[in-house]
Amino acid sequence: MTKWVYTFGGGSAEGRTDMKNLLGGKGANLAEMAGLGLPVPPGFTITTEVCTYYYANKETYPSDLDAQIEAGLAHIEKIVDAKFGDTANPLLVSVRSGARASMPGMMDTVLNLGLNDATVAGLAKRAGDERFAFDSYRRFIQMYCNVVLEIPSHNFEEILEGVKEDKGYQLDTDLKADDWKKVVELYKKKVQEKLGKPFPQDPKEQLRGAVGAVFGSWMNKRACTYRQLHDIPESWGTAVNVQAMVFGNMGDDSATGVCFTRNPSTGENLFYGEFLINAQGEDVVAGIRTPQQITVAGKDAQKSDLPAMEEVMPVMFKELNDVRLKLEKHYRDMQDMEFTIQKGKLWMLQTRNGKRTAKAALRVAVEMANEGLITKEEAIKRVEPQALDQLLHPTLDPKAKRDVLGKGLPASPGAASGRVVFTADEAEAWAAKGEKVMLVRVETSPEDIGGMHVAQGILTTRGGMTSHAAVVARGMGRPCVAGCGELRVDYAAKTFKAGSRIVKEGDVITIDGSSGEVMMGEVPTIQPELTGDFGRLMEWADAVRKLKVRANAETPLDASTARKFGAEGIGLCRTEHMFFDPKRIIAIREMILADNEAGRRAALAKLIPFQRQDFIDLFTIMRGLPVTIRLLDPPLHEFLPQGEAEVADVAKEAGVDVATLKARAAMLHEANPMLGHRGCRLGVTYPEIYEMQAQAIFEAAVEVSKTGEPVVPEIMIPLVSTKKELDLMKASVDKMAAEVFAKAGKKLVYHVGTMIELPRAALQAGKIAETAEFFSFGTNDLTQTTLGMSRDDSGPFLEVYRAKGIYEQDPFASLDVDGVGELIKIAKERGRATRPDIKLGICGEHGGDPASIQFCQKVGLDYVSCSPYRVPIARLAAAQAALGSHEDRTA
Amino acid sequence: MTKWVYTFGGGSAEGRTDMKNLLGGKGANLAEMAGLGLPVPPGFTITTEVCTYYYANKETYPSDLDAQIEAGLAHIEKIVDAKFGDTANPLLVSVRSGARASMPGMMDTVLNLGLNDATVAGLAKRAGDERFAFDSYRRFIQMYCNVVLEIPSHNFEEILEGVKEDKGYQLDTDLKADDWKKVVELYKKKVQEKLGKPFPQDPKEQLRGAVGAVFGSWMNKRACTYRQLHDIPESWGTAVNVQAMVFGNMGDDSATGVCFTRNPSTGENLFYGEFLINAQGEDVVAGIRTPQQITVAGKDAQKSDLPAMEEVMPVMFKELNDVRLKLEKHYRDMQDMEFTIQKGKLWMLQTRNGKRTAKAALRVAVEMANEGLITKEEAIKRVEPQALDQLLHPTLDPKAKRDVLGKGLPASPGAASGRVVFTADEAEAWAAKGEKVMLVRVETSPEDIGGMHVAQGILTTRGGMTSHAAVVARGMGRPCVAGCGELRVDYAAKTFKAGSRIVKEGDVITIDGSSGEVMMGEVPTIQPELTGDFGRLMEWADAVRKLKVRANAETPLDASTARKFGAEGIGLCRTEHMFFDPKRIIAIREMILADNEAGRRAALAKLIPFQRQDFIDLFTIMRGLPVTIRLLDPPLHEFLPQGEAEVADVAKEAGVDVATLKARAAMLHEANPMLGHRGCRLGVTYPEIYEMQAQAIFEAAVEVSKTGEPVVPEIMIPLVSTKKELDLMKASVDKMAAEVFAKAGKKLVYHVGTMIELPRAALQAGKIAETAEFFSFGTNDLTQTTLGMSRDDSGPFLEVYRAKGIYEQDPFASLDVDGVGELIKIAKERGRATRPDIKLGICGEHGGDPASIQFCQKVGLDYVSCSPYRVPIARLAAAQAALGSHEDRTA
Repeated sequence: MTKWVYTFGGGSAEGRTDMKNLLGGKGANLAEMAGLGLPVPPGFTITTEVCTYYYANKETYPSDLDAQIEAGLAHIEKIVDAKFGDTANPLLVSVRSGARASMPGMMDTVLNLGLNDATVAGLAKRAGDERFAFDSYRRFIQMYCNVVLEIPSHNFEEILEGVKEDKGYQLDTDLKADDWKKVVELYKKKVQEKLGKPFPQDPKEQLRGAVGAVFGSWMNKRACTYRQLHDIPESWGTAVNVQAMVFGNMGDDSATGVCFTRNPSTGENLFYGEFLINAQGEDVVAGIRTPQQITVAGKDAQKSDLPAMEEVMPVMFKELNDVRLKLEKHYRDMQDMEFTIQKGKLWMLQTRNGKRTAKAALRVAVEMANEGLITKEEAIKRVEPQALDQLLHPTLDPKAKRDVLGKGLPASPGAASGRVVFTADEAEAWAAKGEKVMLVRVETSPEDIGGMHVAQGILTTRGGMTSHAAVVARGMGRPCVAGCGELRVDYAAKTFKAGSRIVKEGDVITIDGSSGEVMMGEVPTIQPELTGDFGRLMEWADAVRKLKVRANAETPLDASTARKFGAEGIGLCRTEHMFFDPKRIIAIREMILADNEAGRRAALAKLIPFQRQDFIDLFTIMRGLPVTIRLLDPPLHEFLPQGEAEVADVAKEAGVDVATLKARAAMLHEANPMLGHRGCRLGVTYPEIYEMQAQAIFEAAVEVSKTGEPVVPEIMIPLVSTKKELDLMKASVDKMAAEVFAKAGKKLVYHVGTMIELPRAALQAGKIAETAEFFSFGTNDLTQTTLGMSRDDSGPFLEVYRAKGIYEQDPFASLDVDGVGELIKIAKERGRATRPDIKLGICGEHGGDPASIQFCQKVGLDYVSCSPYRVPIARLAAAQAALGSHEDRTA
Repeated sequence: MTKWVYTFGGGSAEGRTDMKNLLGGKGANLAEMAGLGLPVPPGFTITTEVCTYYYANKETYPSDLDAQIEAGLAHIEKIVDAKFGDTANPLLVSVRSGARASMPGMMDTVLNLGLNDATVAGLAKRAGDERFAFDSYRRFIQMYCNVVLEIPSHNFEEILEGVKEDKGYQLDTDLKADDWKKVVELYKKKVQEKLGKPFPQDPKEQLRGAVGAVFGSWMNKRACTYRQLHDIPESWGTAVNVQAMVFGNMGDDSATGVCFTRNPSTGENLFYGEFLINAQGEDVVAGIRTPQQITVAGKDAQKSDLPAMEEVMPVMFKELNDVRLKLEKHYRDMQDMEFTIQKGKLWMLQTRNGKRTAKAALRVAVEMANEGLITKEEAIKRVEPQALDQLLHPTLDPKAKRDVLGKGLPASPGAASGRVVFTADEAEAWAAKGEKVMLVRVETSPEDIGGMHVAQGILTTRGGMTSHAAVVARGMGRPCVAGCGELRVDYAAKTFKAGSRIVKEGDVITIDGSSGEVMMGEVPTIQPELTGDFGRLMEWADAVRKLKVRANAETPLDASTARKFGAEGIGLCRTEHMFFDPKRIIAIREMILADNEAGRRAALAKLIPFQRQDFIDLFTIMRGLPVTIRLLDPPLHEFLPQGEAEVADVAKEAGVDVATLKARAAMLHEANPMLGHRGCRLGVTYPEIYEMQAQAIFEAAVEVSKTGEPVVPEIMIPLVSTKKELDLMKASVDKMAAEVFAKAGKKLVYHVGTMIELPRAALQAGKIAETAEFFSFGTNDLTQTTLGMSRDDSGPFLEVYRAKGIYEQDPFASLDVDGVGELIKIAKERGRATRPDIKLGICGEHGGDPASIQFCQKVGLDYVSCSPYRVPIARLAAAQAALGSHEDRTA
C-alpha cells in the first residue's frame, strides 16, 4: 500500500526535511519543525505522488487516498481536541499547496475550511467572538468560491461594498457581527444564483474540493509561467498541506508575521522581519496594511513610526528569537519563517531557506563559513553565480544630480532607469520593441511576473519589504523600490503624481533599489565597489576550480576591467571592433573600394600603425597572460555605410562617386551574411588583410617583449571548416612572423589555432588539429549553424518555442547540450586524439553561463572566456562545477 | 634500379595498355599497339614516376635517367636505322606529353627534334626535298622556342610575314627552299637577340630541354584549369613520349588524319574521320585547313566538296580500316586514332577510347552489348550519367520560325540561346552577373576553357568536327556549331557580320548543335525524343540498381515528366511553389497581414480548394506511387511584394494601407532568412497553416482513393531540430487526418516524417525517429548549415576555394562526404537503431549527382529524389553505384 499522506504535529512527524521531493518544501519543513519540537499546528501532507497520479490518471485520485486523509484528519482532531464538522467545537483547517521548489503566491490556498452554517456558531462560541467567526466564514466563502468554485471575487466585493454603503461604513472593521451575518447570507445567495446550488455545507466535500483545486492550480497559467522562468520541471508536481487553522486575527493578543534569521537584503546577521497585530497571514504578504518591524533595530533602520514586536510583545519576541536561532543552526542556512500568534501562543507556520539578494547571499555564505556553521566549499555552493551580476553592475553616481520624486523602501538593490509603463502587458510590449521600461504599479501580483521580468526595475506605491514586488524583484535581481506612498498612480490617465508633478507613460525615471529613491530622468551610474566578502569567496572559488577563466576584450578598458575581475588572459579579442573608430574606418572602406590587391595593400598599410598600437596596449595590460587574437571575421559590407546621407559622405571621403560606392555595396550585399563571405574566407580571398593583422600583432609583441615580460600571442583563424583553409592561413601568419622576427633580430613564441564554430569544423577536428595548436569553441555561431537558427531572427518564434517546451532554455544563453554540446564533445575527442595537448576553450556568450560552464568542465575544456563583467560569475560557476553542482539554495 | 624508360616499336613493346598510370594513356596505348604488331613509329616513354620525382625533388631528375634515355634512343636508332644527330642520316623525334587521363591540347609538344644546321642537310638529302627539310627546321625552331625557350611565336610569325611581304607571297606554300633557309637564318638571329646565345645545336641538349618543358607544362595554367574542371589529381603527373618522327607533309603521297572507329557524334557503327594530304598532324587538330573525310559516306553526310580518302588513297584506306577493326575488337570500345601516311606508308600515332556525345555513348554501349562485344553491365558502366543530360534537354521546336544567320558544322548536339560575347573573359564576366552567354570565336584555344565552361554554347567560324572547339564542347556537353565560315567576326568592334547584317555583343542568338544552324534571337524549344537505345539502357540499369529514384515535383507537368522519365514516386513536393500563383498569393498575403488566428484561418480557408486540387492532380498522376509532401517551408516575407509599385498594388488588393503593409514587411524582415522563421517554426507558431495543408492533403487523398487506387500520402515536416517539434506537428496532422477521415467515413494509411536538414536533427536522429516514419535528407540546407555557407552568397569565394584546392568540388553540386556525409551517416545509424525500417532518402540537388548517388548507395539509403530531368541520370548512376563505380571511359 502506497503511503499518500504524512502527518505532523504534537511533537513528532512522519516526514523529514530531506523528503522534499515527496512532501514539497513546505510539508517537509513543517514536518521537520514538528520533529524538532517546535510549535507547529498539527496537520498532514498529501504527497506530490498524488499530484503525479492525478495528472497521469485523467485527474482522478488513488482509491485508498480518502481513507488516508480520514486518518490524517483524525490525527489533527486528536491533537487539537476538536472535530472536523463538529458544531460545538469545530476543527478548521487550511489547505495549501507546497511544491518541491518554492513558488511564492503562485498556487492557490484556502483558509478556514470546515466552516458552515452550523460550525460557524461553534467557532463563535469557542472564540467568544461572533464577529470574528462570521468574518472568518465570509472570508472562507469568498476564498473557496474564488479558488474552488471559480466564482470571481468581484462578485463578493460588490456585495460587501453594497452593505458598507447601506450602513454608511468606510472600513471593513466598521462592520459588526450582524453585518457580517448579513454579508454571509448575501454571499450564499450569490453562490446559489451563480451555481444553481447552495454553497457546500459538508466539510468533507469542502476538503475534497480544496485539495482538487490545489492540484488543479499546478497547471494554471501563473504557475506554468513561474516554472518556466525558474526552470522547474512540470513533472515534479505539488503536495497539499492540510493543517489546523490558527488565527492571528483573534484580537490584540494575536498577530501574524514573516521574518528572516538574517537580513535578506544585506545579509547582516540580525533578526529581521515584519508583523501585523490582529491580522491573518495573507495580510502581511499582500502588502495591504503597512506592517511593523520585529526588532527595534529594524524599526530604527526603516525609520518606522510603528512600535516593534520586541517592544509590544517582548515575551513572544523572545520565544520567536529562540526559534530563529534553533532553526538556523538546524538548517545551517538563513531561514524565512512565517508565524502566527493566537491569543498569546506562538505557532510556526513555515520555515524555508530564505531568498536573499546577491549581496546578502555572499555575506551570509562567507560569514557562516567564518562562523564555522558551514564549510568553505558549502559557502561556494551557496551563492548563485548569476546573482553576482547584481554586485558587479553600476550603481548611481553619488555625485550626479538627482531630481528626486519620492522615496520608498529599498526593496531590491541596484539602480536602473527606464520608460514608465503601468501594466505588465505594456512592459512586455514596450520591451519587445527594444525599450527599457520601468514597471510602476500600486502593487504587483503574480500575474505581473512576465512584465517584471522584462522591466529594468519595479516601483510600487504600496507594500513592504516582503511584499510580492520586493520578494520577486530580489529573486530576479531586478532593482525595486516598494511602498513609495508619496506617489499617486492614475492607471486610467497613464500617469503618476509626485506632489504637483505629473509623470507620464514613456517618461524616463530612475530608481535606486539600495536607497529607495525615485528620480526623474536618467541618473548617471558608477562602477560597483566590491566588498571583502566578494574577494574572500572568489579566493575560495579560485582554490577549487579547474577551468581557467579568460575574458573577451578588445579595448584597454575592457582588458583592465577583465584583469580587475580576475581574468587569466584574453580568450577572444575581436579585431574588427578595432576598425570602427572613425579614423580607421576610412582606411577599411578604401580597402573595400580598391579594385585590386595593390589598392587594398595601400589602404591596409594605413591601418597597421593603429592595429599595432592596439596590440601593444593589450599585451601591456595583460602582460604575462595569454592573449588570443581573432583575425578579421565579419563580412566586409558591415563596414560600408547604410543611409543615403552617410553614403554620400563616405563617397566624398573615399574619393569615389556615389554610384561606385553603391555598386560595390550592392555587389557585397548578402542574402545570409552569417553564412557568407566572412571569417577565413576573407583571409583566403584577400590574404593581404590577415597579413597586415599578423604583422601588427608580431610587431607589437616584439615591442612589448623589449620590457622583458613574456608575450605569447595566440592567433586565431575564424570560420574554418577544412584543414586546408587553416593551413593556408597559418602559412600567411608564419610568413609574417618570419619577416617581422628577421627584421627585429629576435624570435618570439606564438601559437596559431582556430575557432570551432561550424559543424563541419567539429567533425573535422581530428584533421584540423594537425595544424591548430588550440581550439576555441565559438558557440554563438556553432549554435546558429547547428540549430539552423539565426540569433537575430529567432525572437519571433523562440518565445513560443520556450512556451511550448521545445527548448527549455534560450539556446543562445545556455548551451544546447544535446546538439551543440555533442559537436563540442566530438571535436574535443578528435582534436585530442590528434594532438593530446591541444588547448581547448569556449568563447561564445555561453562562456559566462553557469550551466554551460558546468558542461565545459564535464567535457574537459581548459578554459572559458566571457565578457569582463561575467568573469567573477564564471570563476564561481567553475568552482561549483569542480565541486559538483551548486546547491539548490531555494529548495 | 628503377625502370624510368619503356621502349616500344619494331613489333614489340615493354609496356602494355594496363600500365596507364605509369606510362600515361598515350604511352600505354602506343606500347599496346606496337605489341599488337601495328605500324607504330618506334619510341620510348619516360614514366609518370619521373614527373612525380621531378616535382618532389625541386625539378631535378633521377641520376640514372640519362642512361636510360640513351638506351631508349639506341632502341629507336636501331629500328629506323638512323642516328640521333647524324648529319647524313639523322633521327628526328617528337616529344609529347601523355597523362593518365586524356587532356587534349592542354600540354606542350615538340616535333622534328634533332634538327640543327648540320642534320637539316642530311634530312634534305634523305627526303630528296630541301624545301621540306628547311620548312621542318623552321617549324622546329619556332615550336621549340615557344615551348622550351619561352620566346613567343609572334616573334617568328612577324619574320615570316616580313619575308612573304618582301617576296610578294600570299601563302606559306609559295615559299621556296631558299626562302625557308632565309627564314631559318632570321629565326636563329632572333633567338640570339632574345637569349643572348644561339639556338641549341646539340640534339641531346634539345631533347633534355623538351623533356623538361613537357614536365613543366604539367603545372601550367591551362593544364591546372583543365584538371580542375575534369577532377584529375595533380599527383598523377604526366609521362613523356619520345618517338621517331614520321612526316605527313612529304608530298601528295603523304597525309595525316584523325579518325574514330564509330561516329563519335551519333554513335553509328560507321568508320568516321578527317584527314589532310601533305600536312603535319597538328594542322588537322588546329583547324587551320578544312579537312577531307575518310569515307565516301562521311563526305556525303557532310556535303563536302573534297574527295574522301576512300577515293583518293584506296589502299591506305583499306589498311587503316583493318587497323580500325582490329583496335576496336582489341580494346572493346570505340577508338579515337591518329595516323600519318609518309610516302605511302601508314603509321599509327595514337589510339585511345574516343570521346563521344551522350547520344553516341548510349548508342555505342547498347550496340556493343547487342553485338556481344561487351556485357550489359559493361554497357551500363560505359555511359557517363551526367552526359544523359544532353539527351534529355529540349531541342529547337521544328515549327518555330528561325531567322537563320548562317550554317556551320554540327559539332556538339543540343540547342542553346545566349547573349553574344567574343572572349572567354567576357563570357565569364557576363555569366558571373547571371547572363546566359554564347561564346563566339574565330577558333578556340585551350586558354578559352573557362569561358566555354560558362557559356550556353560555342560558335566558331573556323575549324572542323575535330577542332578544339568541337572536341571540348562535346566533352562538356555544350552545344557547338563549328567552322561557320559565312560569319565574319570583328573582335575590335565586338560584332560579327552575317552577310549584311551585324550582330553586336549582347545580342541574343541561338545555335543548333545538331544541325549547325545559327539563328538570330531566342528560338523556342521542344522536349527531346528518347531513342530505343535509351530505353534499353535504362531497362538494364533498373535491373541492377538497388536505390529507388523519385522526383522533386509540384506541378502536374513536373509529375508527368517525372513519371515519363521513370520516377518511382515524388520525393519532394514543395507546397510553397503552389502558392505563388496570382490567384493564391492574394490569400497568402491576406494571411500574413492578418492580426490574429481568426484572420489567418479565414485567409487560409480560401486556399484550401486550390491546395486540395493540387494534391488531387498529383495523386492522380502518381497513382500507386508514393508522394512525399513537404509542408510550408520558406519564411513568410518571401510572399510579400518587394518594389514600391508592387507594394502599392498589393496593399490595394489586400485592403490595407501601404504603411501597414510596409510595417508588416519590416517586421518580417530577417537578417539571415535561411536561419530564420521558416519550416516547422511556422507550423509551431501558426499551427493553422499546417492544419490547412494537412486537411487539403487528406481530402485529396480521400477523393482520389475513391477510384480504387491506393493513395499513401507521406507528409514531411521541414526544418525539424528536436523531437518535440515533430511531435507537435505530427499531432496537428493526425488531428486533421482524424477529422477528414471521420467526415469521409473512411480511413487511409499515411506517414509522417521529417527532413533532416540541420546538423542538430542529424545528431538527434535517434530521438526524432521515435516519431518520424521516414527521413529525407535535405542536403541543400544541410550543406549550408554544416559548412556555414550560404548557397546564394558563396559565389565570390567558392571559385577561389576551388582554385586553391580547399574544396575539390562545389559542395552544393556534389555532396561534401567528409562533413555533410558524416552527419548523414550518423543520422542513418541513429535513426535505424530506433526504427529499423525507417525509410531514408535524399532530396537535395545532390539527389541527381552521380558521385552523391554513389555515396547514398554506400551509406544504405532507400532512395534518391531529384529534378524530373535528372531522373534517368539518377537511375543510371544508381545502377553504376550498385555495380561498383562507373568505368573511367576517357582513360
